[in-house]
Amino acid sequence: MNGSTIGVGIIGYGYWGPNLARSVAGVDGCHVAAIADGAEDALARAAKMHPSAHLSRDWRDVIADPSVDAVMIATPVRTHFELARAALRAGKHVLVEKPMTETSEEASILIEEAARRNRVLMVDHTFVYTGAVQKIRDLISLGIVGDIFYYDSTRINLGLFQRDVNVMWDLAVHDLAILDFVLDDKPVAISASGADHFNGSRENMAHIVLYFSRGTIAHLNVNWLAPVKVRRTLIGGSQRMIVYDDLEPSEKVKIYDRGVNVTASPEQVYEMRVSYRIGDMWAPQISVKEALVTEVEHFVDCIANNALPLTNGHSGLAVIEYLECATQSLRQRGHPIELAPLRRAS
Amino acid sequence: MNGSTIGVGIIGYGYWGPNLARSVAGVDGCHVAAIADGAEDALARAAKMHPSAHLSRDWRDVIADPSVDAVMIATPVRTHFELARAALRAGKHVLVEKPMTETSEEASILIEEAARRNRVLMVDHTFVYTGAVQKIRDLISLGIVGDIFYYDSTRINLGLFQRDVNVMWDLAVHDLAILDFVLDDKPVAISASGADHFNGSRENMAHIVLYFSRGTIAHLNVNWLAPVKVRRTLIGGSQRMIVYDDLEPSEKVKIYDRGVNVTASPEQVYEMRVSYRIGDMWAPQISVKEALVTEVEHFVDCIANNALPLTNGHSGLAVIEYLECATQSLRQRGHPIELAPLRRAS
Amino acid sequence: MNGSTIGVGIIGYGYWGPNLARSVAGVDGCHVAAIADGAEDALARAAKMHPSAHLSRDWRDVIADPSVDAVMIATPVRTHFELARAALRAGKHVLVEKPMTETSEEASILIEEAARRNRVLMVDHTFVYTGAVQKIRDLISLGIVGDIFYYDSTRINLGLFQRDVNVMWDLAVHDLAILDFVLDDKPVAISASGADHFNGSRENMAHIVLYFSRGTIAHLNVNWLAPVKVRRTLIGGSQRMIVYDDLEPSEKVKIYDRGVNVTASPEQVYEMRVSYRIGDMWAPQISVKEALVTEVEHFVDCIANNALPLTNGHSGLAVIEYLECATQSLRQRGHPIELAPLRRAS
Amino acid sequence: MNGSTIGVGIIGYGYWGPNLARSVAGVDGCHVAAIADGAEDALARAAKMHPSAHLSRDWRDVIADPSVDAVMIATPVRTHFELARAALRAGKHVLVEKPMTETSEEASILIEEAARRNRVLMVDHTFVYTGAVQKIRDLISLGIVGDIFYYDSTRINLGLFQRDVNVMWDLAVHDLAILDFVLDDKPVAISASGADHFNGSRENMAHIVLYFSRGTIAHLNVNWLAPVKVRRTLIGGSQRMIVYDDLEPSEKVKIYDRGVNVTASPEQVYEMRVSYRIGDMWAPQISVKEALVTEVEHFVDCIANNALPLTNGHSGLAVIEYLECATQSLRQRGHPIELAPLRRAS
Repeated sequence: MNGSTIGVGIIGYGYWGPNLARSVAGVDGCHVAAIADGAEDALARAAKMHPSAHLSRDWRDVIADPSVDAVMIATPVRTHFELARAALRAGKHVLVEKPMTETSEEASILIEEAARRNRVLMVDHTFVYTGAVQKIRDLISLGIVGDIFYYDSTRINLGLFQRDVNVMWDLAVHDLAILDFVLDDKPVAISASGADHFNGSRENMAHIVLYFSRGTIAHLNVNWLAPVKVRRTLIGGSQRMIVYDDLEPSEKVKIYDRGVNVTASPEQVYEMRVSYRIGDMWAPQISVKEALVTEVEHFVDCIANNALPLTNGHSGLAVIEYLECATQSLRQRGHPIELAPLRRAS
Repeated sequence: MNGSTIGVGIIGYGYWGPNLARSVAGVDGCHVAAIADGAEDALARAAKMHPSAHLSRDWRDVIADPSVDAVMIATPVRTHFELARAALRAGKHVLVEKPMTETSEEASILIEEAARRNRVLMVDHTFVYTGAVQKIRDLISLGIVGDIFYYDSTRINLGLFQRDVNVMWDLAVHDLAILDFVLDDKPVAISASGADHFNGSRENMAHIVLYFSRGTIAHLNVNWLAPVKVRRTLIGGSQRMIVYDDLEPSEKVKIYDRGVNVTASPEQVYEMRVSYRIGDMWAPQISVKEALVTEVEHFVDCIANNALPLTNGHSGLAVIEYLECATQSLRQRGHPIELAPLRRAS
Repeated sequence: MNGSTIGVGIIGYGYWGPNLARSVAGVDGCHVAAIADGAEDALARAAKMHPSAHLSRDWRDVIADPSVDAVMIATPVRTHFELARAALRAGKHVLVEKPMTETSEEASILIEEAARRNRVLMVDHTFVYTGAVQKIRDLISLGIVGDIFYYDSTRINLGLFQRDVNVMWDLAVHDLAILDFVLDDKPVAISASGADHFNGSRENMAHIVLYFSRGTIAHLNVNWLAPVKVRRTLIGGSQRMIVYDDLEPSEKVKIYDRGVNVTASPEQVYEMRVSYRIGDMWAPQISVKEALVTEVEHFVDCIANNALPLTNGHSGLAVIEYLECATQSLRQRGHPIELAPLRRAS
Repeated sequence: MNGSTIGVGIIGYGYWGPNLARSVAGVDGCHVAAIADGAEDALARAAKMHPSAHLSRDWRDVIADPSVDAVMIATPVRTHFELARAALRAGKHVLVEKPMTETSEEASILIEEAARRNRVLMVDHTFVYTGAVQKIRDLISLGIVGDIFYYDSTRINLGLFQRDVNVMWDLAVHDLAILDFVLDDKPVAISASGADHFNGSRENMAHIVLYFSRGTIAHLNVNWLAPVKVRRTLIGGSQRMIVYDDLEPSEKVKIYDRGVNVTASPEQVYEMRVSYRIGDMWAPQISVKEALVTEVEHFVDCIANNALPLTNGHSGLAVIEYLECATQSLRQRGHPIELAPLRRAS
């Protein structure tokens, strides 16, 4: 019965690959056709959980597999470009882990490759597919939050020190993807600070500030060396404010009907006592559907309908451009880096 | 019976003055001798709560009052310098609200004035007198935390838009005073970002990064426009990590026995999976004594023993120097400002 | 100027007395005229904080003091009856700490005494004067919660082992007073369980269940031996549900628009999956005014206007009747005790 | 390669069955051999996730399947007895969902059946296999907690109204299983209160108090109609106290070094002020391994080594006896029910 559904090949069965495979197995319209991983034990786990999939230690077998219509790439970042390009050239649709590539140049090449071959190129910006982030996008686009004053995110924990990327490319990428999705504005300059506390390793903590064209200031606090896990974002607007805590079991998004009356003259603003509690708070119902399932369904739909994914190559490229500027600023102790309009246009 | 105790005059009975007066009334060795405030209703409240104190609408009466040995100044920042200098010149001991003055030059003048007249000059850096901050200082000085990698503070709420200072001078001053107290190191450069979201008012949100000489990075997140009140600081060290949440009713200070094994070679560091939970956490017992009472007792002791307060003019000056650099950097979108060694020496 | 305001005499300056005195000093229309306490150090503290009040070690001096119009009694429970009766007989208005007396018989006598002499008799059920409890009363009386299915309160901490009352008379009294205020219904039976873990002391933990005439079940969890302080109440209704957490700094009252559709037939009820998140939650703005100030203002108003307080002798008596039944049931391992209609009528 | 591992047949693929199947697929030494469910859509989901398993709408096919060595029963409670007995009679090992059966008589019959045929009979008391509960058991058995004064659990949420059991049989069963595992003592009497707020349905909320032979009092608060999900247990001992919050992402178990000095004479106990913060708190590292995986591994080990499981038929029977007594007491408004020594012996 699988013949009639999209055959998915998964390359990389380490930390994230098994989640992708489980989601594919649970979503209608696709099935796990093949899995590749260089490690024996990883393949053994794959065999037990997906006994009917083709297994191989060589990713080339997945790309060459005629039963594979689409490839999901969950390997180290440095390999994303080569594998994604090879898959596209083999005529496969591609879902690639974040960050999309190591450089914006590579990202641009993949975008062209996918366009030329009319294949779906999607980046795994998972948070864009959560009920919480989609609710926040709606609240902002409907004007309920008003003008966005700031976006302040803390995304810290004791995390994996990665070989090929620093903490910004590992954690800040999530917030940059969310910002690209929820804000109808682009950054004009970026200032970042951070440190590498272990000689020779990549930066393990960073603070990134993005200045947007219409005055929004975004701050991203990312850290691999935090004693506690925090996934908390505050969004301050002229009308309302949002607290988004992804670790909250139920009320992940809280909307506060409070702030400062901007019609007041500066004189009044000075005088006004902004009371600690002005209006009510409410927490709207959020879909509890697993984001990865929504994302895989979206991938399947885009393939079936030849549509552009929400998180397509261009959003992947934008995120990488921001990361490149942030890394440049971080090496100069926060010296602000301007984003060229041309690049922002992309 | 009050004759034998230190007579305290309080100038400014608005938001903070009543707390100072209540503490003075509750501490042995001192009493509320006089209160001045320009507002009738403030004086009426003072009269009801402290019926035996001399009341006046003119602060000069307090400074001229022979029953007043020491003056506490709880007025707007722009008036601190004039009032403190007048009080010192009248031979009074002085406790001045934070920030000490509007400029580092004024702070230096007060320091000289107090030294010349051999009077106690103390700055109301209240947090230095909390059981939590004193416990953190001990944990760091005893080497329990190890090398300090970072100090990351969030101090946000819906706050009073002040006429004469921006959010950094109102909120970050607390963390700068704590840093000056707990770290045995000085900043060498400062980068700050922020915004004024209401034309003509002062900056209402800011992110300040301080680079210290031995590698510590401090980040201060201050905001007058946050929907929720947060008073949370993370301190990451090579041995242990601390979470200090001042709003926690009981466990304000939590110590986490976790981190990365720095003896590992970079190669190993890359490979190592830093598990989300390594060692135990413990929350030591913290003194619940009110900080303001401890502080007033310390003020009384310093006067009685002619001693230098923990939060003396020099700590007040250092904090103001950092605020001046941060404001300068903020106006340049995070461009880092170096602190001259000479100034740090003070 | 105090002559024209109500002179208040405070008996007992231990733990709670100073709070009463501070509130009286802060409220218009009354002043601290006299303070009595048997302990020297307590009197010394009173003298420092309230230098203009008459001080005495003998409570009789307060009751005999012609400058005293009203007496506040903050002494051990076993003394409430004698002191309150003496004060009423001396023509003073009375505010007595909770619980009002040791027995319902004594409470009835005080009610008669106050009525005969036309004096105000008020019980210090402080929580009734909080913005949170008054908001809950409004939500219930306006039908927003619907039929009340349950009231489930947890009021635990490491507390003072009292000589003359057990934990129910110390902690459950708060919830019983709240129930008497917010519910338009009376209990018909009470079942209680508990234990005394130290030979010869009073019960230090208890669970009390009250069965109300219209089906509401109230459960009160009180404990002097809990490692953490909890002040949390859940109220479940046919329309909405409330979570009241008194330790929350801001959102003390949260209203959840969720539950089970009671129009459904039992068959449907069985089948229906009650999803973990049905509707929105909102947290209304709550007055942050200090309850004790509101209460003292109410006491002053009732004296000025010869009105019956919200927490009058009858509410004090009802609470004591419930406590007597609960103690009786506790000694029989939860055997339910029925409340006689006559008593409930009172 | 599956031939050499234990073949597991799963009956019931509704809510819990898929979790059992996923765990079996992930554990070495066993594999998913067959799945039965009466519903077509359930079977379709099973086919997609476990394409190599034998599927059937009739549970008898699973029990008759020669490739099935052990049967896991995840069906409604009313069917547990018939299915488990049939599986044992067919010579299969059995893991049955909690509660084990509808009556203690049925439980006893299954115990005899398993013993006669020398087959493993295990009850799915999942919490016993969590790192948190095993840590608590160790802390108690090592004497670190001291004499157990109380066990106070809150297990509430908006839950599924079940056809064949009330809320005690659905939720309290977890705590009763934990109590049976961590306490070296048996209850002597049970008092329970509760209500059915929808005519004809089962009780949807209950409070159960268990009196143990050595003075421990256990209270279980279970509710299907709570607006928030709570999984919180307090354990008070003579030496230390524990707070176990299963919803905490990391510190699930906190140990508080505080309490009352029991060597004090009652006189001293009365006088002593038990301060709100006595000693330190610490949160030990807890294994984050999924409980269901640990449990399935234990099931496989018991089959391989012909051993008695931690959660065997006798623990399943004890829990059901407590539930029967609690239901009896609930119908009498908390009237205490004594447990017969003979039954406790089992």
